[in-house]
Amino acid sequence: MTRGTPPEKIEHLQPEKRYGLTVVLTGNGKGKTSSALGMVLRACGHGMRSCIIQFMKGDLYAGEWDGIKKLGDQVELYHTGKGFCGIQGNTYPYEEHRANAQDAIDLTLEKMVSGKFDLLVLDEINNALHLKLVDLDQVLDLLNRKPPLLHMVLTGRNAHPDIIERADTVSEIREIKHAFRRDIEPQPGIDY
Amino acid sequence: MTRGTPPEKIEHLQPEKRYGLTVVLTGNGKGKTSSALGMVLRACGHGMRSCIIQFMKGDLYAGEWDGIKKLGDQVELYHTGKGFCGIQGNTYPYEEHRANAQDAIDLTLEKMVSGKFDLLVLDEINNALHLKLVDLDQVLDLLNRKPPLLHMVLTGRNAHPDIIERADTVSEIREIKHAFRRDIEPQPGIDY
Repeated sequence: MTRGTPPEKIEHLQPEKRYGLTVVLTGNGKGKTSSALGMVLRACGHGMRSCIIQFMKGDLYAGEWDGIKKLGDQVELYHTGKGFCGIQGNTYPYEEHRANAQDAIDLTLEKMVSGKFDLLVLDEINNALHLKLVDLDQVLDLLNRKPPLLHMVLTGRNAHPDIIERADTVSEIREIKHAFRRDIEPQPGIDY
Repeated sequence: MTRGTPPEKIEHLQPEKRYGLTVVLTGNGKGKTSSALGMVLRACGHGMRSCIIQFMKGDLYAGEWDGIKKLGDQVELYHTGKGFCGIQGNTYPYEEHRANAQDAIDLTLEKMVSGKFDLLVLDEINNALHLKLVDLDQVLDLLNRKPPLLHMVLTGRNAHPDIIERADTVSEIREIKHAFRRDIEPQPGIDY
């Protein structure tokens, strides 16, 4: 919808060269997964297809699980994880976290070679690597095998320097402040 | 969809106290608008309604315009701006940019008091304030009049310190690297 004086014309960018970007979203602040979800929504508008593979957020409901259903068959979302490893109250053993993250690696390869997607989101993979649930060689192998026109977004804090080196676009999302610190509980729609 | 060993149960967070958060996404890196869009997608999954008011991105097509249409009547998006003020090739005079941003302020107030929305995204409002298209008093007035349960997300670089002071959650998105710097043109699905 347009308000005020409408622009004379809407300009449509058309890059001369299409390029599949590798994007890393890291840092300790709020906005990494939500930014990746926003790119999925944006890609959807362009008629592109996305696949989101969550490496670590398995057993805590998040609004995006139902949100992406509204986007229809342009988006697939897989949650393979067992929640955040090492977080208070998360009782799954390390081996189970690792087995799930390893399954997410296999799934990523499967989806990558399927040729079905324009955008692949590897949610929390940076953190999974940091916690040794996946290995650096495995993530570098994914980047090596990425088809040239596929966009790949890797989220999670503590991104490995070798992954940052390989990426095209990297944002560090720094926490300036967070409502959690004032004991405000996570709120639906914003935090999950 | 679930892969690997499914979690024994999905935990649904239910905050004891609902709270309408004020979130600021600022900094020079990629991910501010896309993060706000991701929150809209997430809110949608919770059955919440969102309104996005773009203060400055009027005449350049962005994938989210069509992406949010897929979310149906849970989301409204308004673009009132005339593109980025002061950017090369943007020929609209300052007065016209300001008139559009002022219209966006009026629209924000209208949507805020309508009681129809759970989440209001004021896209690029920080930048609009920095460029004097809106005034600090006007933005503080919006924050003062925000209903207690309404989430409000303010995006754009150069967020004003007084706005940061008033917000609950603030992320600074720092550019570590960007594909633009290597003369890779903006790519659909990721950059717009």
